[in-house]
Amino acid sequence: MIITLYSVGKNKEQWLEEACSEYIKRLTPDAIVQTEWLRDDQQLIKATSKEKRLLCLDPLGKEFTSEQFSKYLIQELENSGARLGFVIGGPLGLPKELKEKHPLISLSKMTFTHQCTRLILLEQIYRSFEIAKGSPYHK
Amino acid sequence: MIITLYSVGKNKEQWLEEACSEYIKRLTPDAIVQTEWLRDDQQLIKATSKEKRLLCLDPLGKEFTSEQFSKYLIQELENSGARLGFVIGGPLGLPKELKEKHPLISLSKMTFTHQCTRLILLEQIYRSFEIAKGSPYHK
Repeated sequence: MIITLYSVGKNKEQWLEEACSEYIKRLTPDAIVQTEWLRDDQQLIKATSKEKRLLCLDPLGKEFTSEQFSKYLIQELENSGARLGFVIGGPLGLPKELKEKHPLISLSKMTFTHQCTRLILLEQIYRSFEIAKGSPYHK
Repeated sequence: MIITLYSVGKNKEQWLEEACSEYIKRLTPDAIVQTEWLRDDQQLIKATSKEKRLLCLDPLGKEFTSEQFSKYLIQELENSGARLGFVIGGPLGLPKELKEKHPLISLSKMTFTHQCTRLILLEQIYRSFEIAKGSPYHK
């Protein structure tokens, strides 16, 4: 399975890179997870156009419990031939072109920094696979 | 203002300590934010008993947008004489004694690690003060 996180800007925080790498490493037996950093919204739209299935993160999107998200993610991966893209908007949010075309999902009603969003999303993807396996990670 | 985060366990992640320290530093002009780590639920109940006002974090608690949380936090600080405690449960959640006595608030319907919860809570406290000041941090 290949999951790609698309994000505008770049990661300037060393601590965050370490934290995200940890989850990406833990996910390796289940999925290849990669991040593509794009310069601006135009580049983001171009880069994401190659994905068959794209989910956009937005505080106003559909909310899930971790259990519901696990089911949703695994269903989405099955439906899309094991390839999925997530879009994390920059400081100005998601471009309208993507927002109108793809499902909006929400990690929280609250606005997080896009750095925190990436970390939380990775942790929830990892948690999703652990829930599906019935592992003790998610009690 | 003094805000104390009470948590069971200890922080083993260096990256998280750095990230949390950054927000604690940024918060200094507005509030002294400290973390108390407790060994177990009994210690947690004892330590938190000295707080006049305590808010407990739980995925089933009341959800807020960041703007709503900003108003709520500032109101709570005004009502409680500028002193407030937040409780983050350990891997087994919050002890019943605290859950039944204090308001439950939620950062997300999803379950986060308690490390991520601490980081997100600190970022939302920082964001709350920035929203109240009308700063460009929260666009």
